[in-house]
Formats: sequence, structure tokens, C-alpha cells
Amino acid sequence: MLKLYTAPGTCALASHIALIDAGAAHEVVRVNFKAEEQRKPDYLAINPKARVPALVTPRGILTESPAILAFIAQSHPEAKLAPLSDPFAFAEAQAFNSYICSSLHVAHAHRMRGTRWVEPTDTEALAAMQRKVPKTVAECFALIEQTMFKGPWVLGADYSICDAYLYTAALWMEGDSIDPKGFPKVYDHMQRMAERPSVKQALAATTGR
Amino acid sequence: MLKLYTAPGTCALASHIALIDAGAAHEVVRVNFKAEEQRKPDYLAINPKARVPALVTPRGILTESPAILAFIAQSHPEAKLAPLSDPFAFAEAQAFNSYICSSLHVAHAHRMRGTRWVEPTDTEALAAMQRKVPKTVAECFALIEQTMFKGPWVLGADYSICDAYLYTAALWMEGDSIDPKGFPKVYDHMQRMAERPSVKQALAATTGR
Repeated sequence: MLKLYTAPGTCALASHIALIDAGAAHEVVRVNFKAEEQRKPDYLAINPKARVPALVTPRGILTESPAILAFIAQSHPEAKLAPLSDPFAFAEAQAFNSYICSSLHVAHAHRMRGTRWVEPTDTEALAAMQRKVPKTVAECFALIEQTMFKGPWVLGADYSICDAYLYTAALWMEGDSIDPKGFPKVYDHMQRMAERPSVKQALAATTGR
Repeated sequence: MLKLYTAPGTCALASHIALIDAGAAHEVVRVNFKAEEQRKPDYLAINPKARVPALVTPRGILTESPAILAFIAQSHPEAKLAPLSDPFAFAEAQAFNSYICSSLHVAHAHRMRGTRWVEPTDTEALAAMQRKVPKTVAECFALIEQTMFKGPWVLGADYSICDAYLYTAALWMEGDSIDPKGFPKVYDHMQRMAERPSVKQALAATTGR
């Protein structure tokens, strides 16, 4: 049995969707970010980074969305959630996920998590970061729309872990003052993702929707 | 023949070391960051992100260090640069690389590349970012030292792509005003890495050292 630590509105949604897509036996534990549970000793013993997702497996605990997503795909090959037998195609999937993780998610995090990179007393710097978020995050989605998204799914004909990750990040757009309709391929993808049972189930489990 | 686009002092060094470790036939093209070559149309046609590394393969172009590193390992299994047949162990390698890419590298980038996240006119914000870099990058290395590094190599007994990536990031420490000797495992790893022929060859090719 796998156990996923998650929190509403976070990138852990992607791993949650992928677990359901894979048909993996799992349970979900919701970490209360408002109560700062992620910084308390009980959770730091699970993930010393004080972040979600964390996936408890019989072999140990995994962190980092791209690693967890690829693990779910590789350990459930029958679900065909990534091009596992083709190193180049798998690398394209990994490049996409790495871009979400290190560029898009980071750009987004400058709105709410600026104190990762400046002191809390640097209020003007925090405001300067927030001001640029709509531009930087939009640039990431423009690059995805124009150069990465193959259609109908991220990697082309086949649904994959990359779709769960893109959808998760796309849900942040409105909060970042970006109109998803400005990115027609991503917007259409969001609508199709929202209809998938795995997505509905994952959202319902973490947000009560 | 693979072709790696790189620049001195960047994370592309890790991919370069891995190509040599893998015994992969490759050539290296140095992008002149001082002349902003990475933002010119010729290079944007290779990598629209205006970054290095980019790896040109017979199948297409790959970007993002974690993706390129895993690709090199998977497409050269005989070099044993990652635990390819064990999804959990491979995920641990990926989690390590993802952390370097999305946390450590990002923390480091706030020293020289702050205009990714604030406007160039926000000079106080840029200064605030720079002030925190020694703390945030040191926290990343502390977490690596205390919770990730298994020894003698990152993943334990066997050298892997993670070692090339850690070494590359560790070279940034002094520029970030961090004493590598404060992290004994990482420091010892740096000394052993510096003696490896693949590391010497990669550094000589890009820096003239």
C-alpha cells in the first residue's frame, strides 16, 4: 500500500491523479498547511524538505513530483502512463516535468512563497516578486503552448504523467492573474482533464469538491 | 553523434561529465553567455528556453539536466550510471536530481539571475535576493549532507549521474559565499570527483583549465 502526503492546491495533486490513473492501491494523507503541519517534527520525519508530495512506499519515502510521477509510471507499466521502453521519448517526458518543476512552479511560487528567497522583512522585495508573477508564469505557459505541447495530450497521442502535472499547474493560473483562455491548447486540455474520473476523484479527495 | 550545448560555470557541466562517463560519441559546442548568444535566434531555434544544456540527438533535441542525465544513463546501460532496472532506486536518483534542479539551482540563481523573477529596475529586490543566497544555498547543501548523501557516492556504493550533478552544483558554493568545508561529505566528494578523468576532461574542454 502506498501512502501519499498531499495538500489542496499544491503540486501533489499530480501524483494523486497518477496514482488513481495507475490503479495503484494507495491512501492519501492531507497535510494541513494552514496549521503549518508541514514544518512540525512528525512531518519533517517523513519529508525534511517540509513540502508535499511525499510518497511512502514499502522500500522507503520518495519526494519530488517528477520522481514520484516517473516512479508511479515505471512501477505500473500496465497503466502505460509514460513511454517507458524508449529512452528518448521518456526523456522528453522528463524534460517536460522538469520544466514544470524547476521553471513554472518556481515562477508561481514567487507569489506566495517569496520568503524562500528573501527575508520576511524585505517586504518591498516580496511585492516586487509578486508583481512579476503574472508575466513570468504566463511566459512559461506560452512556451509550453508553443513549443512543448504536442496534442491532444502533452506528449502526443497518448495520455501520460505529464498531463496530470500540466493540469495541476494550470489550475494555478487564475490565482496568478492569468487567463487560461489566452493559451488555447492548455485551456482545451484543462477542460478535457476536468472530465476524467481520476481527476475528479483526486480533487474531491483533497478539496471536498 | 550527440552534440551538447554548454557554457562554463553552468549546470551543463553535469551532462558533459555524464557523456564522457558513458563513453558516448559526442561533440561539445560552447555558447558564449557574455555575448548573450543564448538569446539569439540561432540558439533559440535549438533551445527556446535560452538556457543550457541542450543535447542534440538523432531523434531530436533534449533540454533540462535531469532529463538529459537520465537519457544518457538509459541509452548507455553498459556504463551503469543509474539504477535502471529498479524503479524505486531510479526514483531516488531522480528525486536527488530534481532537488538540485528545482531547489538548489534555483536558490543559487537568485544571486546572478534575479531578473528572472523581478524587473531589472527593482534593484532593492535584486539586492535582497542576493543577500539571502548564502543562507538558502547552504540550507540546500545541509539537507543533502544530512538526509540525501549515502556515501561514498550520492546513491551509495555506486557512482551515478547524481554525482556529476552534485559536483557541478558544489562548484558554485564559493561564489555563493559558502565554505564547502562546512559540509564534510560534500567536500570530500568534491575532492574525489576532481580526480576523475571524466571531470578533468569536461572542465578542460569548457574552461581551458
